[in-house]
Amino acid sequence: MASWEDYVRKVVPYTPGEQPENLNVVKLNTNENPYPPSPKVREALRELSDDKLRRYPDPAAASLTDAIARQYHVSPGQVFVGVGSDDVLAMSFLTFFNSDKPILFPDISYSFYEVWADLFRIPYRKQKLNDAFEIVTEDYCQENGGIVFPNPNAPTGVLMGKDRIERILESSKGSVVIVDEAYIDFAPEGSSVLPLLPKYDNLLVVQTFSKSRSLAGMRIGYAIGSEKLIGYLSDCKYSFNSYTLSQAALLAGEAAVRDAAYYEECSEKVMKTREKTKKVLSGMGFAFADSQANFLFVTHEKVPARQLFQDLRKAGIVVRYFDQPRIDDYLRITIGTEEQMDVLFDFLRKYL
Amino acid sequence: MASWEDYVRKVVPYTPGEQPENLNVVKLNTNENPYPPSPKVREALRELSDDKLRRYPDPAAASLTDAIARQYHVSPGQVFVGVGSDDVLAMSFLTFFNSDKPILFPDISYSFYEVWADLFRIPYRKQKLNDAFEIVTEDYCQENGGIVFPNPNAPTGVLMGKDRIERILESSKGSVVIVDEAYIDFAPEGSSVLPLLPKYDNLLVVQTFSKSRSLAGMRIGYAIGSEKLIGYLSDCKYSFNSYTLSQAALLAGEAAVRDAAYYEECSEKVMKTREKTKKVLSGMGFAFADSQANFLFVTHEKVPARQLFQDLRKAGIVVRYFDQPRIDDYLRITIGTEEQMDVLFDFLRKYL
Repeated sequence: MASWEDYVRKVVPYTPGEQPENLNVVKLNTNENPYPPSPKVREALRELSDDKLRRYPDPAAASLTDAIARQYHVSPGQVFVGVGSDDVLAMSFLTFFNSDKPILFPDISYSFYEVWADLFRIPYRKQKLNDAFEIVTEDYCQENGGIVFPNPNAPTGVLMGKDRIERILESSKGSVVIVDEAYIDFAPEGSSVLPLLPKYDNLLVVQTFSKSRSLAGMRIGYAIGSEKLIGYLSDCKYSFNSYTLSQAALLAGEAAVRDAAYYEECSEKVMKTREKTKKVLSGMGFAFADSQANFLFVTHEKVPARQLFQDLRKAGIVVRYFDQPRIDDYLRITIGTEEQMDVLFDFLRKYL
Repeated sequence: MASWEDYVRKVVPYTPGEQPENLNVVKLNTNENPYPPSPKVREALRELSDDKLRRYPDPAAASLTDAIARQYHVSPGQVFVGVGSDDVLAMSFLTFFNSDKPILFPDISYSFYEVWADLFRIPYRKQKLNDAFEIVTEDYCQENGGIVFPNPNAPTGVLMGKDRIERILESSKGSVVIVDEAYIDFAPEGSSVLPLLPKYDNLLVVQTFSKSRSLAGMRIGYAIGSEKLIGYLSDCKYSFNSYTLSQAALLAGEAAVRDAAYYEECSEKVMKTREKTKKVLSGMGFAFADSQANFLFVTHEKVPARQLFQDLRKAGIVVRYFDQPRIDDYLRITIGTEEQMDVLFDFLRKYL
């Protein structure tokens, strides 16, 4: 080992889901939206002039933060944007989790939380989900250096009620609580904790353009919180990279936010397909928690998940398998179009 | 102060140059390229299909790293890409500067270095440039936790010879040395330290698409180093955000790299205008170091810089003023088109 390697930060990185080049596979592995973005997005991208390409974007990303603020009835000072919600979450870990006390998150959850904690040397404790894959509220009502969980949770899809989240907020006023709502638009209306913001200045709600807004390729995420919270987050962001969102992302993002009706319609379609998928897979011997996200986390009474994962793959159907304790007999299946799900059902009917 | 604020990382953020909305100002303040990007970039962006927008980009950004590797005759494993060179540098500070010994950089330099060091709690020592605004080689040949400097330096434009950089590399094999070549394409051919890479596996060369490639709006930067160095950097990047470059950035970046001839021509034009600007400003009583970048760092024998900065602004000409010790009587003026510089010259002729 060369001597300069002594000073290197060594980490075990997150492994993202694969992005196969082949567009013919049925891609149900990274929870993308099967429907195209709003036609208004393509239209907006036509404004990507040479002058826009040549010049630095607005570092405050005002056009996009203003549009988000209007959509969610908050002030622009309550909105933070980043390069996908991963960027927003990474920056939030760096900014808010600077205590010697452990931060808390579920043992079965977004696996990036542990990676960020390791990267930034943040102490953490993983709290066990119960056997129904639910977050145990009391486990989060204890001393902590911060709290983070997705709602609905990933990869389980389980939604936690707002009243239970409020219990956690009530007992954790001394640290920042991050609710990662990447999948909230596929849950019943009124599931978001955004309405709790006026009561808790330590609550940060993170959402994304990658799922319900069909813009995973453009890398846009955002957080909404109190102006004080967002101020600290912005300071750290400006100390890391002033210009994170490209002119293209600003144009696409703003157009997407403004076309809320289009996206609600797409989300409705995904939810309808999800409910149908639940029925079909139940009938085939699969079990799963009652997902309120755009994926199902399924296990089969007879076929081991690892085996099924590989056989699906051979048939050109890509889903996600996590080789981790407690969930190594489960597959996460993204909800695609009706046609894509029919391909899956046809395969399974023959296979099982 | 709310109790959760105890755990917040508090920083004094970097202040980026302003991005005025008004396109009629003569914008000579953030070192953008005055010429449009290659027509091939616009062409490539037409491939930004709904499917590309909807799906996650390739996390390895292989199409872009491959194109960069080919252009610079290195292996793809020697290339790292990020959201502008600021992202690349921030990630490099986080990855490589983990020693108790101070990192070294010039006192007059890119002001973000100090901000990153503060953000990541990295000890640092600023080494004084000499009165000719040159880096004193010996100051960097001492024990350190890492070294970083721009070449040409910013905001001075002063170029350091490769032989002197090699002296530093020879004496600092125990830490990573970052040469920030954001402006190298405006320096004489053969100024880059890229040819030294095979000799020093601790040398990281950082470049950008924001200056010579006219793509500041798309946010693309890159680093080239040994495969070992890039491996560590990628691990940290994958622990922060897997998908940093959007599908749009990948398309634009690849097309830009491939059209090297177009960009060489633009850089030639900028360099020609720079040399002419040196002559004109000399004749008006300005003094400056012999910049090899796309800007001049000037001081006037009679008019205080702060005053001139404000008066230029009133006339719709925006340049950059740094209110810092040793350079508070200087202005950094980006080299624009011949026409833009003529507007500046006309103003100064009447003003002085």
